[in-house]
Amino acid sequence: MWADLRPIGRDARTGGYRRFAWTGADADCRAWFRDQARARGLAFEVDRNGNQWAWLGDPAAGDAVVTGSHLDSVPDGGAFDGPLGVVSAFAALDELARRGATPRRPVAVVNFGDEEGARFGLACAGSRLTAGRLTPERAAELRDADGISLPQAMERAGYDPAAIGPDDERLARVGVFVELHVEQGRFLADTESPVGVASAIWPHGRWRFDFRGEANHAGTTRVEDRRDPMLAYAATVLAARERAAAAGALATFGKLAVEPNGVNAIPSLVRAWLDSRAPDEPTLAEVVEGIERAAREHGIDVDVTRESFTPVVEFAHGPREEIVRLLAERRPYDVPVLPTGAGHDAGILAARVPTAMLFVRNPTGVSHSPAEHAREDDCAAGVEALADVLEGLACR
Amino acid sequence: MWADLRPIGRDARTGGYRRFAWTGADADCRAWFRDQARARGLAFEVDRNGNQWAWLGDPAAGDAVVTGSHLDSVPDGGAFDGPLGVVSAFAALDELARRGATPRRPVAVVNFGDEEGARFGLACAGSRLTAGRLTPERAAELRDADGISLPQAMERAGYDPAAIGPDDERLARVGVFVELHVEQGRFLADTESPVGVASAIWPHGRWRFDFRGEANHAGTTRVEDRRDPMLAYAATVLAARERAAAAGALATFGKLAVEPNGVNAIPSLVRAWLDSRAPDEPTLAEVVEGIERAAREHGIDVDVTRESFTPVVEFAHGPREEIVRLLAERRPYDVPVLPTGAGHDAGILAARVPTAMLFVRNPTGVSHSPAEHAREDDCAAGVEALADVLEGLACR
Repeated sequence: MWADLRPIGRDARTGGYRRFAWTGADADCRAWFRDQARARGLAFEVDRNGNQWAWLGDPAAGDAVVTGSHLDSVPDGGAFDGPLGVVSAFAALDELARRGATPRRPVAVVNFGDEEGARFGLACAGSRLTAGRLTPERAAELRDADGISLPQAMERAGYDPAAIGPDDERLARVGVFVELHVEQGRFLADTESPVGVASAIWPHGRWRFDFRGEANHAGTTRVEDRRDPMLAYAATVLAARERAAAAGALATFGKLAVEPNGVNAIPSLVRAWLDSRAPDEPTLAEVVEGIERAAREHGIDVDVTRESFTPVVEFAHGPREEIVRLLAERRPYDVPVLPTGAGHDAGILAARVPTAMLFVRNPTGVSHSPAEHAREDDCAAGVEALADVLEGLACR
Repeated sequence: MWADLRPIGRDARTGGYRRFAWTGADADCRAWFRDQARARGLAFEVDRNGNQWAWLGDPAAGDAVVTGSHLDSVPDGGAFDGPLGVVSAFAALDELARRGATPRRPVAVVNFGDEEGARFGLACAGSRLTAGRLTPERAAELRDADGISLPQAMERAGYDPAAIGPDDERLARVGVFVELHVEQGRFLADTESPVGVASAIWPHGRWRFDFRGEANHAGTTRVEDRRDPMLAYAATVLAARERAAAAGALATFGKLAVEPNGVNAIPSLVRAWLDSRAPDEPTLAEVVEGIERAAREHGIDVDVTRESFTPVVEFAHGPREEIVRLLAERRPYDVPVLPTGAGHDAGILAARVPTAMLFVRNPTGVSHSPAEHAREDDCAAGVEALADVLEGLACR
């Protein structure tokens, strides 16, 4: 499976992936999914929001065990974030067949559209639409860098934009959703365990900081006459790291736009995006407020806009404990329970259906980068564990 | 004259100018220059490097008094940087005619091409080529953001790229070059004088800093596992300001490129351009070395590339003192002699021909910005002063 997926949307220069929602690379990934479903004789469906489903058993029977993830990527993303969960889902179905295990409940593999939000700026758009966490009206306002809206992009990719919207009927068929994902940190790397189970997703959000100064000639304007927004930005970057570290939280400035962005011009505008996450919502609010205060200490006008916010997600204790028990029966390693700072479709669905996540060990912790990696034997352990979970939940 | 020039290359959103060398906006400015020459019956020429000349008297007679500046702009530049020198040159010729003063030496107005270097990254390309300070081979390596080389851009604009090169014959015709320019600081603003004379141009240069870290997920990578080049960059911005201020120099980071530039990705690369200038070369070297050392203190790989460097230019004492004397005879204000941090075509020509500069007061000091300004009566005083200089040098 990996061999067919590996070349799609890969940038030859960086080795990273650029599989943005509803682009040609995304269409190639989606064709791959359909082919995998058909090759196994699974019933293939695309829902009203463009999410792909492959069914073993009768979709209408209800109480389905659903697994899967997403196939799109961040700019210069790695090979595993998303695809590992989809590939492992198909591989786990193969493993169930090899074991001769026959599901008594329907089992489905899902590929959620536009999980990363790399194109339209909102993560988990596919699962949000389905769960009613993103309205069709708001989706129509989301635009990419070329001004194309999300529904327009879906229409160009061959889907019906009029169908977009909440899909309670589909959610009602789902008994439990289990998403397998490469770990995006080094928690498991420091243990003997190739696989862990998620406890919670930290609350997180994106804030846009517009630092407005005064454009001027870099070669002639006296230091005391300058209103240089780059200095305020630089001080804010350092303050953000300090405040996040002190609070056990995360704060990152990874995206910037500078105007006029000329070598010999003091900028008029530094626009910077803050990504911040913390173990709980009060801590996150405190960290971001502290960063905002620090930004305003430099005599430069600063506008701060919250572009997105996702509350804390505590995964239900029932499915999580059952998964730990199922794995403990068969696997020779401990199954750690760990939180994550990353958002996932599982975090969106958790508000509507019982949901759990499995993490596969990442030796470097690197993610959202071409250097993202998981060892082959750990990936195999992930498939075995997912097969154990599907067998335990669906076949007994 | 201003009425025709004002709309060319103006960005409706910012009110700033985007007159980049060899673009359509530049061609419109150049057509304006040609029309001004023809309207006055001046002999119009374009030299092998695309610089425009308008001659009163016989170009071949030698020992010419030449004045002028440039018409191109930085991104979102002001209306005066460059055009004021060209408009004032034509207006000063009109004033000479009004006075009934007849030149005994040839007088020329010049528009040097690509002074700002906004498109190809090298300032004063037109005067550098003419003065032999930029070889045709090196010019062919200069490329804009779309990969178009300087000679290709000139060819597309209708010029012969094979002709590019040093032009000693033309320089031999020039007896003295006087460039009038809006002041790009607040030296004159604090005096009673609308016009000053340049003493020297500070040595200056551009250095590219490549901060290379490790791309990673902004939501999951522990603070202690990060190699975030944005932090090293931010600390370097603050160190640069501190070191420059302490040395009485200038240091500015105004241009940035971030990879992958995603909200939820720790950057792999922060590429930042430093513009630095100082009263003398040892001070400049010390400031830049200090900034480089500061950049390397953060555990991030940093490559520093010097992209350009212009040594200190001391304008010849002869022409400068003669200009001060000529103005003192007729003008009721003191004529301050002041240095500047900005590069100019006059700085390039100074190595080859006697050269001087006049500055016109700038009430805010703002330049390289849509807010750049000079009062109308100060502009008129600049024209009067330039006419005095041309009359004194060419007509007595």
